[in-house]
Order: sequence, then structure tokens, then C-alpha cells
Amino acid sequence: MQTETFERLESNVRTYSRSFPVVFTKAKGACLTDENGREYIDFLAGAGTLNYGHNNPHLKQALVDYIATDGVVHGLDMWTTAKRDYFEAFEELILKPRNLDYKIQLPGPTGTNAVEAAIRLARKVKQRHNIVAFTNGFHGVTMGALATTGNRKFRENTGVPTLGGSFVPFDGYMGDSTDTLDYFEKLLGDKSGGLDVPAAVIVETVQGEGGINVSGLEWLKRLESICHANDILLIIDDIQAGCGRTGKFFSFEHAGVVPDMVTNSKSLSGLGLPFAHVLMRPELDQWKPGQYNGTFRGFSYAMVTATAALKHYWSDDAFELEVQRKGKIVEERFQKLAAMLSKAGMPASERGRGLMRGIDVETGDIADKITGKAFENGLIIETSGQDGEVVKCLCSLTITDDELQKGLDILEAAVKDVAGAKATADA
Amino acid sequence: MQTETFERLESNVRTYSRSFPVVFTKAKGACLTDENGREYIDFLAGAGTLNYGHNNPHLKQALVDYIATDGVVHGLDMWTTAKRDYFEAFEELILKPRNLDYKIQLPGPTGTNAVEAAIRLARKVKQRHNIVAFTNGFHGVTMGALATTGNRKFRENTGVPTLGGSFVPFDGYMGDSTDTLDYFEKLLGDKSGGLDVPAAVIVETVQGEGGINVSGLEWLKRLESICHANDILLIIDDIQAGCGRTGKFFSFEHAGVVPDMVTNSKSLSGLGLPFAHVLMRPELDQWKPGQYNGTFRGFSYAMVTATAALKHYWSDDAFELEVQRKGKIVEERFQKLAAMLSKAGMPASERGRGLMRGIDVETGDIADKITGKAFENGLIIETSGQDGEVVKCLCSLTITDDELQKGLDILEAAVKDVAGAKATADA
Amino acid sequence: MQTETFERLESNVRTYSRSFPVVFTKAKGACLTDENGREYIDFLAGAGTLNYGHNNPHLKQALVDYIATDGVVHGLDMWTTAKRDYFEAFEELILKPRNLDYKIQLPGPTGTNAVEAAIRLARKVKQRHNIVAFTNGFHGVTMGALATTGNRKFRENTGVPTLGGSFVPFDGYMGDSTDTLDYFEKLLGDKSGGLDVPAAVIVETVQGEGGINVSGLEWLKRLESICHANDILLIIDDIQAGCGRTGKFFSFEHAGVVPDMVTNSKSLSGLGLPFAHVLMRPELDQWKPGQYNGTFRGFSYAMVTATAALKHYWSDDAFELEVQRKGKIVEERFQKLAAMLSKAGMPASERGRGLMRGIDVETGDIADKITGKAFENGLIIETSGQDGEVVKCLCSLTITDDELQKGLDILEAAVKDVAGAKATADA
Amino acid sequence: MQTETFERLESNVRTYSRSFPVVFTKAKGACLTDENGREYIDFLAGAGTLNYGHNNPHLKQALVDYIATDGVVHGLDMWTTAKRDYFEAFEELILKPRNLDYKIQLPGPTGTNAVEAAIRLARKVKQRHNIVAFTNGFHGVTMGALATTGNRKFRENTGVPTLGGSFVPFDGYMGDSTDTLDYFEKLLGDKSGGLDVPAAVIVETVQGEGGINVSGLEWLKRLESICHANDILLIIDDIQAGCGRTGKFFSFEHAGVVPDMVTNSKSLSGLGLPFAHVLMRPELDQWKPGQYNGTFRGFSYAMVTATAALKHYWSDDAFELEVQRKGKIVEERFQKLAAMLSKAGMPASERGRGLMRGIDVETGDIADKITGKAFENGLIIETSGQDGEVVKCLCSLTITDDELQKGLDILEAAVKDVAGAKATADA
Repeated sequence: MQTETFERLESNVRTYSRSFPVVFTKAKGACLTDENGREYIDFLAGAGTLNYGHNNPHLKQALVDYIATDGVVHGLDMWTTAKRDYFEAFEELILKPRNLDYKIQLPGPTGTNAVEAAIRLARKVKQRHNIVAFTNGFHGVTMGALATTGNRKFRENTGVPTLGGSFVPFDGYMGDSTDTLDYFEKLLGDKSGGLDVPAAVIVETVQGEGGINVSGLEWLKRLESICHANDILLIIDDIQAGCGRTGKFFSFEHAGVVPDMVTNSKSLSGLGLPFAHVLMRPELDQWKPGQYNGTFRGFSYAMVTATAALKHYWSDDAFELEVQRKGKIVEERFQKLAAMLSKAGMPASERGRGLMRGIDVETGDIADKITGKAFENGLIIETSGQDGEVVKCLCSLTITDDELQKGLDILEAAVKDVAGAKATADA
Repeated sequence: MQTETFERLESNVRTYSRSFPVVFTKAKGACLTDENGREYIDFLAGAGTLNYGHNNPHLKQALVDYIATDGVVHGLDMWTTAKRDYFEAFEELILKPRNLDYKIQLPGPTGTNAVEAAIRLARKVKQRHNIVAFTNGFHGVTMGALATTGNRKFRENTGVPTLGGSFVPFDGYMGDSTDTLDYFEKLLGDKSGGLDVPAAVIVETVQGEGGINVSGLEWLKRLESICHANDILLIIDDIQAGCGRTGKFFSFEHAGVVPDMVTNSKSLSGLGLPFAHVLMRPELDQWKPGQYNGTFRGFSYAMVTATAALKHYWSDDAFELEVQRKGKIVEERFQKLAAMLSKAGMPASERGRGLMRGIDVETGDIADKITGKAFENGLIIETSGQDGEVVKCLCSLTITDDELQKGLDILEAAVKDVAGAKATADA
Repeated sequence: MQTETFERLESNVRTYSRSFPVVFTKAKGACLTDENGREYIDFLAGAGTLNYGHNNPHLKQALVDYIATDGVVHGLDMWTTAKRDYFEAFEELILKPRNLDYKIQLPGPTGTNAVEAAIRLARKVKQRHNIVAFTNGFHGVTMGALATTGNRKFRENTGVPTLGGSFVPFDGYMGDSTDTLDYFEKLLGDKSGGLDVPAAVIVETVQGEGGINVSGLEWLKRLESICHANDILLIIDDIQAGCGRTGKFFSFEHAGVVPDMVTNSKSLSGLGLPFAHVLMRPELDQWKPGQYNGTFRGFSYAMVTATAALKHYWSDDAFELEVQRKGKIVEERFQKLAAMLSKAGMPASERGRGLMRGIDVETGDIADKITGKAFENGLIIETSGQDGEVVKCLCSLTITDDELQKGLDILEAAVKDVAGAKATADA
Repeated sequence: MQTETFERLESNVRTYSRSFPVVFTKAKGACLTDENGREYIDFLAGAGTLNYGHNNPHLKQALVDYIATDGVVHGLDMWTTAKRDYFEAFEELILKPRNLDYKIQLPGPTGTNAVEAAIRLARKVKQRHNIVAFTNGFHGVTMGALATTGNRKFRENTGVPTLGGSFVPFDGYMGDSTDTLDYFEKLLGDKSGGLDVPAAVIVETVQGEGGINVSGLEWLKRLESICHANDILLIIDDIQAGCGRTGKFFSFEHAGVVPDMVTNSKSLSGLGLPFAHVLMRPELDQWKPGQYNGTFRGFSYAMVTATAALKHYWSDDAFELEVQRKGKIVEERFQKLAAMLSKAGMPASERGRGLMRGIDVETGDIADKITGKAFENGLIIETSGQDGEVVKCLCSLTITDDELQKGLDILEAAVKDVAGAKATADA
């Protein structure tokens, strides 16, 4: 495989190609194929962007059909039939069945753009500058979003400090015996605690980049009620956890909360095309025309495939149930692997919701060994968490049971290998 | 046309659909077609995103072929054949013939993302926080980029002030007799002038949103030499003016300057797909792995169409010459229209470079009347400038002479209409 | 008493004159006298500025003598004999006996100025922007210091957010069973917790404005060791708690910690004259000449009285022991008052160190009733805490036992009155 | 003279003691005396703090009398007779005769504190974050004030960028043929010029630290009218130029403008005691009680001497006329010196208003040589300007003609010396 071109021309900022230093060429369903024809089971799936698998045939067909008609590709924020179809499908298949009443904003087609739009609108509506985010939260790296993203890797290279964000501890951050919302609520009520009353709270129900940290459903309900009691907007960033990843379309459905705003992106287009939207309660839609813009906010291809995805997968609850079923499979296998590692002297634990799952092996070093070994054997799987200590499964939701088991087998072999090496070293 | 769905569900932030309140369905070359089958000549072209026209057949074919092979759609920043092809074509067809030596960063696929990456890298490299931008400059609306964007419409709705940007007057801002760089140079050398020594200057050679303000070629050369003399990086934001719009691939080629960094987006993919890159001199590529990221930084479709556009249009200078030729046509017609308006008591003037041209009619009101009348007669054309006072032509570069003349005829009729109404009113 | 002048000309920002709406004219020791000749015991003492009492005769004499010689009054940062005397006395009487090795910076003569200087120097030395402060901390209201001050009253009227400060919970903030430094230490070690690695921690060992919150001595030691382990500077803001208030010259002596920097002001001049200094370990003195300035940084009168105070009160440990003895008296009486209130159904508790003591009565309303009643009876006493819920004793350290008991008696009568009213209301 | 104590203990930040490395002990009128008994004529006068001379006998006497009565020294913002006397004198002697209607805020007793209060109030009243300041303006170094101070020396050592200030060119900055307010007015009216509509403009009528830059009276009037037309508050920072320095009590009286707010400090107390106030039009006094504070805002000594200064010097216009007369003397001598230097090949020019005057010798190097030589001969005189290129006379306003001439003679000898050395070197 010729990689010299990349080494010569591509910025050092590249990262995934360091873990998987091959040149990919094709992809289908749960598999990626490199230039030499080698196939890999993909448990990364575009970091949660390919919930319906690579080149999903239903979505691809819808796109090919659209292209054939010379449909508008790029429409700024003009009205197009593609956009109308998307709005109608989203309303009929997602909002109405869930009794949700939202207006839709299409910002630039990236998650960070949606977050910037949401927090800017929150500040405008509430006339307060502060946005509360949570430890280990990730909401994007453009400067506005970065104020709510905890990672030093990004925060320390900005040249100017971020402005207008405060962090409070996520569920479980202070151990099992402490409800972190006690601390948040105390700070909110404290006139000299240093917490500026926020316009909004932004939260992921399951933190993806932060290490598959799962918020409790009661914790989320309480967070919602604290927000209500204090006239603070609740923004759920469902960019990674949404679109079915946790076993429901929106990850917050499990808890029965109704956010004031929602951000979606990643798997929203279904086919991996750049796309994002912000949902907001109608009374919050206080934008004036043109107050937020972006060249690619009318990318029709993404609307076409998003519409196809909604129609194919979200007309009834079959897909949700299927995701939940597969989630159980991963959960059980991950518990087994965690036990295996713990037994070998490497304490580990499983966690997650739906098909967003991880094994916390406590150090990035062990996690890297496992994922490195897995890659050698044909599995693409990545880590997350502040130290990269969580081996993370974000496989496509449409993965077949065979592919899933095959991927899990490769992972188990890698775990055994690492556990065995440890046993040998200890001996 | 059914527009009720939009009115019910779409955020008030929508803007172009207010100027053009129809539902578009198809597009080809220089034309857009609405749901009723009415055709419009398009002088907006995705605000500079569709330099090669809607559904350009060469680019579309490349995309359809790629889709047929189940090529990787979304690859994060992994290596793919699509990316290698793009890098190689860009190097061979663009960089080498121009003696340019740049490394390439693919950030999130929007212009604002590219700008955020460029200014963050500049700050990191130079260890200074300030970025100098110019009056009427536009570089995006996410918070980092917004520090360099002059528009109050965006700046006043952020809830927190922007941080780390300073504005100095663009070429011509203080009248013909003042070289605005005298002021900039004085501030740079002044230890108590209030200008923090910047890491970088960011500039558009022709300001698109700012009103088709054209910087002089000598002014640009002097700006480059001031930057060199003061150890300041020169970033040219070629998002709107690049990709052939001014008659050269890069707009700065006219002046013979060599920026330290370049941002491209908009027409970079050619087909209107979200795409952006940052070019940087190799020694500036001081990113550490993963210090800047974004889910959609590996959107292969855009690379495939971008490669096709490069190969089809940039293998020789024929396309450039063609753009320059058409630019002359628009220039002459616009001069005539400006004279017509001036004669009718509405002072107007023409300006621009290549096919990025405008008529400054001095008030947004007159400009809106002209573009409104033009739309009635089948021409999509927009305004820019701080008050929307510049009627702007950003037609596709591939427009046929017939289409171009037809569009210009519609515009001329609109101008006559507005001039006539004024004459009647004055009488 | 003529107050109309004030009502006509003085800004609404005035505050203490609302609690004590009389016109004061003279003051001596622990007493203030109003225009009608009425005397008040002063338990406020300039909010901690008059540790040696009003018009302390030793200090006053030194000043009068100095004035008589036409000594330099205002010397910018030129060298004067007054400054040399001050430096020598401070070195001999304070630094050497405590084995402290500090250089001295004289910033503008206010506490907030000293804090601005200290945190700016910390950022410069460590090349990091963040400063960690604690819930309920107060370090001044100019914008730099305000980033470390928790009070919303000040933070919400700035028009721009503060920049470069983060808050973590002070000792005891999360209840007795939680060591808040566990949380701080976890955040420090967490690469995605949202806490930017700070240049410095700034802390009051006893929070004055925050409500007489006393940090544990072990907690302080641990804070010091966390700072050392993480290459973070420890700044102790001893503006209110220093100069003997807690029974030692520096409040941190109790814990045996050695801060990297110390800020003093308030009682530093002794006579109530504006004065402040920053102490810093010599290797931290990385200021370049003139990098921080202020017109009144060479106010000799304050140096003269400060020197006199040092010589008179700090040549041996007698004064410290005396403060400790009186602190015990207040402690016991306050415990009694707290018990009295609790018994009457108004839960209350005593806390403090040395002569910096308070009764937390849990609501500002009760506290205001007590202090209002006390004022009627000739005692000036104020509240602190986020809701003004802590009745606070900051009486001069030189108060006589008679005056102290008289003040405490007035306070006890007020407490009884409020407790009785409650009993009546409940009945 | 023993200076070792300073060298050992004093922070490197010290600056004036580097120009004048002697130890001063006494001061009277226009003279300073060092420890060896050597006298120096003082043309620095506390950087404008000692307008009435060192140890002015009238002011000193008032202070001594006050001390003798055990008057309140430090009163927080409680009401005192000293404060009432000050308010009444200020109203009767300053405000009423000038038809000015202001309320008075006493912030912390430093200039930077007054500026912080004024700009915070402006932001609060106008609900806008931006404050416009001018090139070479100096308004203090605490972080809020620093946003309006142009000096890189201070701005580059803050660790965080300043927030909420924008700079526009001061009168004359772009040469004689350009009215810099044309540029400011254009920016104000430009919706995409990058200038956020400011809450206030802050300006010195004569820039002291910036280099004795004198704004034209017409320019000031126009600035006032631009502010009015755009609903922007005009804050005149009269900290250095006020209290008679320019020949009127307020420097803006010359132009006949009426600012919305005024800041005074430096010579306000008269004797060199720390003191500052903010004046504001009554309808702007929208502070809530306690929204801005500071321990030393009730420093009675300063009010006592300030009252004495008002009564002694400002009961009629004799003092103003005297200052104007002496200003003429300095002006003429400085013109002569400038001519002398210019003739010797060192281009120089004179400028100033009243007794705030300078000779611009174009380089800091020449200026340092002149002031260094003058110091050798017994004259204390400093430089200002971005490069220290302006030799500055801020002698006390009460200086005798003899002392003034003696000081000017020393300066002339120094100039001759430097001019002569140049002639020799050139030969």
C-alpha cells in the first residue's frame, strides 16, 4: 500500500491512520476493506456516524435515485423538496410518535456547528453567558463548543482561553455514594459559589469520547427538574448517542426527559454524509433571519439519505428492539472479557447502554495493547476516556449476528493475549 | 407549492427562502428549477460553492462511479484511496505548477472549521493570541472564526464577546488617498497603540460577504512584506474567492504573494458537497496528533468530486482564461448598468475580479428592489455588503455565454425598471 | 445629623451607610462616635482593616512625627527611607523569625491590586492562564481579581464574563464526610475533566466575606502538597485573615504551610491607610522593570504606620497570645449565643479562628434582625456569607476586655430579643 | 546611602528607582531631598499626583488638625463628616460654578479602580460590552482597565487576553491631514466593520503616559457629538490631566464638553494620598447597593486634604490663571530647547497644555540621555510616550518662578550637553 503521499502531504494532526496504518478502499455493512483486499470488522463505524452500516443499500439507493434526477445538491437555506421531505419524515416518524414539539434549525453540517448554534441561542434567549457542561463531556472543538468540552488536548492549544463555560461533575464522578447533582444544586443556589447562573446545561446521556460514561435515568430526570426549577435550558447533545445508538432514537427517551434543545449529527444522514440539526422548543426559536449561517446548511444529499433512513428504520419499533437485543449480546461478552482481565490482575469493568458499550481497563496502555492486537487480527476498534482507558464498541446497529460474534471473538482473543502476556510477565 | 411544512417546522433563522420563496427541486448547470417547473438563471450559485455549475456532469459521473464501487463514504481521518487520489491531484495540478509547498489538513468540512483550525495553529506556532482581520471581512460564525468576522448581525448574538481578534481597515476603507497599510504598519510598530502583536493576519483578497471589495495587488504584496518583516503569519482565506472564481485557482496568484496558510472550502469539492482544507507551509505543521478533530473530516465523496474537478478543469490554463473572458463580459455589462443607475440619480459603481463582481448601488433598499424584480423575471441574484448595497454576481464559472447574457438581460431590465420608477417618482 | 448631602450626591452604590445611617465623626480604639456624640462599640473595624484599633496612639504618633519632618508622602516606586525602614522591619520582625524568604512587591495600595499582581505574575511564571479559586472566596472586584471572587453580586454586573478562573469546593463545602480536595485532585489528574491546569491556587485560610469559613489545618497542608506535586503555585490571600487576625501574623502559620506568594492589605498599615504588598518566593520574582505599576504604590504614610505597628506589636509573641486569649472569649460567648438561638428554634452554630469569628444563623433575615437590634443598642456589627447569614465579629485585636464584654453583652441582648420574638411568634 | 535592603528585598518590578538611584527622605514644594541632603527640583511630581507640591502647608495643616481630633481614618463607605465636607466643597466649588450635575462614587482609592468602576457601570447601563479607547491611551493596569490601555508592556504579561476594549486612533495619529474621527465615525456606522457598538468611549484630553498627546478642542467637541448621536457614553479620564494640570480644574473645560462620566485620582487628595472618585450624570447612577466595593473607599485623610485643596485653590480663578501663566513659560522654554535639538540634527518638537508639557525628541535613547544628564545636575524629570521619546514636565502647579526657571536651566544644560555630544560625534 502506497502511504508515502500521506506522509509527505498530510498534516501531523492525523490520528486514526496511526492506529490503523493501512489504506482503505471499500466498505460495506460492518466491514471495511483495505487496498490489499483484506477485510476488517468495523467496531468504530465512523465514531458513531455509521449506525446503519457502510454503504447501506437502502440509503445508497435513495441517493443514487436522487442524483439521477439532477436534484438540487447544495441549496444554502433555500426551500427544496429534499428538505421538505426530510422535515415531514422527521415530524411524522420521530417527533409525533414521541409527543415532541420542536422546530428544526439546520446549521453547518457538523456537530460542533450544531452545538455552537444551540448554546448561542440559549445565551440569547436567557440573556446569560454561562453554559454548564460536565466533566469528560465532549461537544466539539470550535471555540464556542470548546468551552463545553473537557479535553485538555484541545483546550490547551487554542492560544486564548475558552469563555462562557463551567464544568460540574457528571453522574458517578465522585463515586457511587455521592449524587453529583447535590453539588450542582448547591452551587446553583449559592450566591457566592463562583458559578454564574447558566443559560443552559449541555449534557450527553452517555458520554462517548469521555469513556462510555452512562448517566443514570434518575439522575437525568433530576437534572431536568433542577433545570426547570432554576429557569435553565436543558440541551441534550445526542450527536453520538442519538439516532438509535442506545436502543431508542433519542438517548433521552430512556429517562423520559424532554430537553429544551437537542443536537444531532453523526448518524443523522445515515450514510455518513455531513449533516446536523438543532431541535428547539418552538418558543425558544428567537433567532432573527440570518443570525446564524453556514455555507453547507442545505446539503440535500444528506437530507435524502436521512429521510430514507427514517422511513426504513423508524416506522415502527422493530429496529429499536433489534438494537437492544444486540446490545445485550455485547454487554454479556464484555462482562466476560472484563472478568477475564480482572482475573488476570488487570481490573476491568463493562458499561454502556444499547450498542454504545465499553470495557474500562483502567489504563490507556492496556487498552492500546488490546485494540492493537485486535487490529492485527482484523478488527477495527478504538478507545475512549481521558486516558484512552476504555475499549469501545460502536459497531453499526445493522451488524449481523455473525459479524458481531466474529468481531467479539477477535476481541476476546486479543484480551486473552494481553491477559496471558501479563500472567507470563508476572510469573 | 407547499411551503406550510417549512413555516411550521423550520427555524426563523432561515434567510434565503425569504428572498426566493419557492421550493426548488432540480438544478443543472447555471439553472435552478422550482417545483412548478419554472427555471431560474442562478447568479448566486450556492454563494460561491457551485463554481462548476449545478450537477456538473463530469463531477457527478465521478461520484456515481465511486458510489457503485461501495467506496468508503466516511473515513474519519483514516487513509483511503479517495484521499490519496485527492492529495496527488492537488499536488500535481495545483501546488507544483504554482511552485507552492504546502501540507494539507482536512478539518471539519466547513469553511468556519478551516478558519478555526488555521488561526488556532497560528496562535500555537507563534505563541501569541491576537489575529488581525480586516473591516468587512467574513471568516465564519463559530466563536473562534467570529473573532475575525466583522458583521454585527453575528457578533451581537453570541452572549459572550469574541476573543483574540483585532480589526484594521481593508484596502480602500479610508478613501483612495490613504493606504490603509500605513495605519496598520504604524500600529504594529507602536508599543502603546493598543494592537497586540498578532500571530497572524487573515484576509480575503476579494471580500465576498463584505461587498465585493477588491484589494489592490500592490496592497497585497505590501501586506505580505509587512507580515514577513514582523514575523506574522499571512493567512489567505480563499474560501469564496478561491477555486478559480477570480480567474486563477488561488485568488492571491494575481498578486504573486505566497501565504503561510490558505483556507479553501465552498467550491473545493466542485459538486457542492461539504469540504474544506487548510494549507500550511510544512514548517508550520506543528500540530500534535489529534489536536484538532471533527467527525466529517474524511468525507470521501467530496474528495472524489474535488479530484474530478481538478483533473477536468485545472490540467491546463484554458479554464482560467475562460473565466477571465466571462469576467470581462460581466464587468462591461455591470459598468453599463452602474452608469444607467447613476444617470437616473442613483449613484452606482462596478467592481470585482474575474467572475466575482458587483454593482454598488449605495443602499440596500435599491439593491433589494433590483434583485427582487430580477427574481420575478427568473434570475436568482443576491446582495452583499454591510447594508446589502452591492448587487453581486457569483454565477457559475461554467455558465454558457447564452445563459450569462440571458441573466444579464434580466438584471438590466430590473435595473431599468428601478431607474424608471425613480425617474417617475422624481418627476 | 445632616444626611441630605449624601442622599443628593452619593452614588446608590453606597452600602454600609444603609445599615448604620448615622454620620460618624470620631473614632478611638474600639469605639466610633457619631455626630451627636453617641458612642458605638465597633465589631466591624473597617472590615478587618483596623486590627490595632481606630487611631491607635502608637501608630498615630509615628505618623505625626513623620509629617512633622516633611517626609516624602508620595514617592511612586522611588527609594525612600520610609520604604527602607518598612522593608527592614518586615524582614527582621516577620520574615526572619518565621524562616520565610520572600521578596516584596508594592502594587497599588488596595487588596484587589495585590491580587491582580499576584495572579498575573503566577500566569507569567507558569505560562498557564487558569487560576483556581474556591467557592465563597473573595479576592477583590477589579476584573482580574473578580475571576477568582465567587459573589454573583459583583460577577453579574461586569458586562463581560471574567476570564481565567475556575472554582472548586472549599473545605467543608460538600459536608463533613467529603474531603473536597479529593475532587480537586481528581480534576487535576483528569485529562478531560474540564479543569485547565492552573498556574496557581488562591485561597483564604479563613474566608471572611464568604462567611467565616475556616479551612482545616490538615486540609491546608494537603492543598499545599497537591500544589507542589502538580507544579502549581499556592497563593494565600491573607488580606483579611492576616496581620494577626487569627492569632498569628500570617493565618497560614497555624497550618505550617509556606505559600509561594502571599497578599496582604487591610490591616497592613495598621492605622487604616491604604496599603498592600505581595510577597513572593525570590525565584518567582520574574517581573521585568515596570511591568506592573500604579500611582500610589509608594504611599509613605502607610509604610511609616506599618513599621510602627510591626515594632510595637510584633517584636515578641505577647500580642499573638493576647489575640488568642480574646478569641477564646468570643468563641465561648458565640457558642452560647448559638445554643440560645438553636434552642429557640433557630439553628445556629459558631465558628472562626482567633478573633475572626461568626455565628451562622442560616438566614440573612435572622442575621439582619440581630445586627439591626445590636446597632440600636450601640454595637456596630455586620454579617457575611453568601446570604448574609453569618453574624461576624472582626473587632479590633487591641480591644479591651471591658469593651469586648460590653459589645458581646449588646449582641447577647439582641440575640435574646430575636429569639424571644420567635418564641412569641411560634406561640 | 544604603540601598542594599532594596536590592535584596524589593521586587524587580521597581522602575523609578532605576532612573533615580538615590534614597529620598524629605520633600517640600517643588523639591525632593535625598538622604545625603542633596536637593532636587522635581519635574515629575508623583507623575501628576502632587499638583500642589510636596507637603503643601495648607493641606498638611488640615490633615494634622484632623488627626488631632481623632477623626475617623477609615470608614468603609459609612457616612462621615469628612466625606460630607468633601462632597459639599466639591459641589460648591467645582460642580456648581461649572454648571455640572454629577453624582459621586468613591471606589477604591486608585485611578485604575475608578476606571474599572466607570466602564463597568457604562456596560451595565448600556447593556453592551465594548469600550472604545484610543491609541496610546493609559487607563490603568488591573484587567478591566487594561482592556483600554494600549501599552504592550502591560498587555503582554497578563496570561489572558483583555476583553471588551477596542482601540481607535487618537487625534493626530494619522497625520495632520486626517481627522481620525472620520475613521471612528465610519466604523460606528458600519454594520460589518468589526467594531462592536460600544457602551462608552474613554479618553484623556491630553495623554500623559502616551506622550503628552494633546487632543484638539474641536476634535473633543466632535467626539462628544458622535457619542451623543450614537447613544454612547463619553467618559473622560481626567486622572492625570485633571485637578488643574492643564490650567482648568477639569481638562475638558477648555473644549466645553460635558462628559457622561469623569474619573479623577492622582492630585485629587492634593497631598499625594490615595484617592479617586467617579463622577456620573445622575440618571446613570444605576448601581445597586454594594455592587462595587473596595476596602479603602472611605479613606478620610484624603477627603480632608482634598477639601482643603478645593477651598484653598479653587474658590476663584486665580490659581487657574497662575497655572496658565507658568504653562506659557514652560512652553516657550521647551520650544527653544526643541529648536536647539533640531538644529543639532536631532529633530524635536514641543507640545502640551497648561503645565502638562513635553518635548518629543523622537527616540527614547536621546530622551534618556537628556533626563539622565538632568538628574546628575539635580533635576528629576521623566519621559513618556510609546518609546519613552518625550521628555515630560509635570512639575507641581505651585512651583515658584525661581524653582521653575532653575529646573528649566538644568534641563537646558542637559539638552545642550546632548546636542553638543551629537555635534562632536557627527564631526
